[in-house]
Amino acid sequence: MQRESDLQSALMETISFAGDGIATELIEHEELADCAATAIEREGEIILSYGTGAGYTPLRELIAGRYGVHPYRVILTNGWFQGLVMLTHRRARGRDAVIEYPTYGKALDQFFATGATVGYMDRIEGGLRLEELQYSLRTSQKKVSYIYTIPAFQNPTGTSLSAELRWEMFKLAMRFKTPLLEDDTFGLLRFEGDHVPTIFEMSAGESIYSSSFSYTVAPGLRVGYFILPDEHAREVAGIANGTYISPSLISQATIFEYIQRGSFDRHLGELRDRLRERRDALTEALVRHLPDTKWLMPEGGIFLMISLPPGSNGPAMLEAAEGVSALSGTDCGGSPNTLRLNFAEPALEEIEPGIERLAAALAAVA
Amino acid sequence: MQRESDLQSALMETISFAGDGIATELIEHEELADCAATAIEREGEIILSYGTGAGYTPLRELIAGRYGVHPYRVILTNGWFQGLVMLTHRRARGRDAVIEYPTYGKALDQFFATGATVGYMDRIEGGLRLEELQYSLRTSQKKVSYIYTIPAFQNPTGTSLSAELRWEMFKLAMRFKTPLLEDDTFGLLRFEGDHVPTIFEMSAGESIYSSSFSYTVAPGLRVGYFILPDEHAREVAGIANGTYISPSLISQATIFEYIQRGSFDRHLGELRDRLRERRDALTEALVRHLPDTKWLMPEGGIFLMISLPPGSNGPAMLEAAEGVSALSGTDCGGSPNTLRLNFAEPALEEIEPGIERLAAALAAVA
Repeated sequence: MQRESDLQSALMETISFAGDGIATELIEHEELADCAATAIEREGEIILSYGTGAGYTPLRELIAGRYGVHPYRVILTNGWFQGLVMLTHRRARGRDAVIEYPTYGKALDQFFATGATVGYMDRIEGGLRLEELQYSLRTSQKKVSYIYTIPAFQNPTGTSLSAELRWEMFKLAMRFKTPLLEDDTFGLLRFEGDHVPTIFEMSAGESIYSSSFSYTVAPGLRVGYFILPDEHAREVAGIANGTYISPSLISQATIFEYIQRGSFDRHLGELRDRLRERRDALTEALVRHLPDTKWLMPEGGIFLMISLPPGSNGPAMLEAAEGVSALSGTDCGGSPNTLRLNFAEPALEEIEPGIERLAAALAAVA
Repeated sequence: MQRESDLQSALMETISFAGDGIATELIEHEELADCAATAIEREGEIILSYGTGAGYTPLRELIAGRYGVHPYRVILTNGWFQGLVMLTHRRARGRDAVIEYPTYGKALDQFFATGATVGYMDRIEGGLRLEELQYSLRTSQKKVSYIYTIPAFQNPTGTSLSAELRWEMFKLAMRFKTPLLEDDTFGLLRFEGDHVPTIFEMSAGESIYSSSFSYTVAPGLRVGYFILPDEHAREVAGIANGTYISPSLISQATIFEYIQRGSFDRHLGELRDRLRERRDALTEALVRHLPDTKWLMPEGGIFLMISLPPGSNGPAMLEAAEGVSALSGTDCGGSPNTLRLNFAEPALEEIEPGIERLAAALAAVA
């Protein structure tokens, strides 16, 4: 009896597709421990003392070199989100903003928190309703502070915008002299298909670029980066200094060391393989256990969004689900019959049983 | 010739008493490198993934144990200042606040930034004008959000409040039902005299306590901590999560390891000795080179404030000074004939030549 109930509870340990994180097996713990120790031993005088609001200079320079910009334009923040908070705090407060729909829920909340009036551009069928962006830009009473987009492997849909759409979006932003904020958090995680230039690349550095080391290295290190026009960069560095003096230099120096010794690029290659493996395990499980769902195939990143049969109640299904969790599309501004699945979060072998449990829940509420 | 001018420029490398930092020789780089590596190796699964807004649980528990409170009440922030920003953002905006005069300049700026109307209580002759606090509390139109005090080894004066004054301040706060925010950043750095209970200790945990590992471990790690009433703690953890998701766990885990293995307490003992040595070097140099200045002797911490002869122009003196810097009292709300000297920042052997240079500057502008 004891044994059976142990087994049952072990079986029922929740398999999560719901979070924003990644499985610990996708993070190189030992290598990062060594990088942290090396960084402090070599640069302790700098990283254990106060730094500037803009972040650890060698990492700023390294990123600047990779993106072909002046290091002054690179601002390193305590995670990408902290950077968004600072940008919107100063520039979006009480003004308009145009964002994708659905989008990253916390970013949406942040625009609301600034009191911005939010216009939406629908992210559908792997594309984007540009006419909605144009309408918002044309009719905005208070000048639009930012157009916010995640062109590559978007959170939550997992889809990417074509080069044409990116270019058209940039041209619209230029025509209305509106800053375009590109969130390329997942951009380096393409595991299939050809590279599509970022808006930043297309615009020869005119747009605002941002990304994160949360998925390419480790979320807990909390390091995001922004490539901003000079004036914005100075402004954000000033806000950073007035908020936390300097960011966590030990995290930034650890990442610098990880890149410098070649681990970052090697790891990226391996990580992409492992993400593709998981995406495949997920889509195979969906075909097998939830054959009536639809999705657009992500070519990178960590998210896949499924549409349950029309009329399905995603939140009720998640409520009924046992031993599995996912994010309801309604939590990121999507429809109630959609679910966002993070295939980087569960262990590889948990993916199929997780989808089986979701299928059981759907059957139970149908 | 070459040799002489090299010597000259070496001699004239600026000796700084001006900053908020500490000399790198007061930070245990190698030990901290080892602590960081150990922390990641042992706890990498936790600290390299997202955590909670409240910070790294084992360090919260350890601090809670040392202060005799429930761990839920302990919030770890990306440096003490980030915690102040979050507290004041929610609770001081557009309301009143009462702070010491002079006080920590960045904290003063932060209260102004929230739009708070600021009342002052003069910090003079090692004491505090409590009647000014009482007046502010009695006449405040908008309820006072916080009384902010640094009772021990204050920034910028270096002075400490007596147990009686602390107790009277707490009673006043209670009478007017006003939160009392104690900043004990320097409290553990007593190198002379007897322990004076913190307001937190006197109040049996009723007041708000806060401190930092910036001086006891390293500023660059950016770890501050707050012990808050339950409701405030939940609120700040929520703001933290909505700003940076989780703080830098690698810094917090490094400090946890440093405390756990006994290095923190050992280092504190050594650090106090070295700070006393520096304070003594500073006061001896002042007696020798600036005999007309006055000061109150700090029994701990890193700051000493000098009063130049009445009518002296501190800012002009600093302008004229060559190869030395200090903070004008006017930068932290003090008088123009005062200077704040950070004796933890220069190397020990720089202290006397630094004061000589200040004396030369004073002679030049007199």
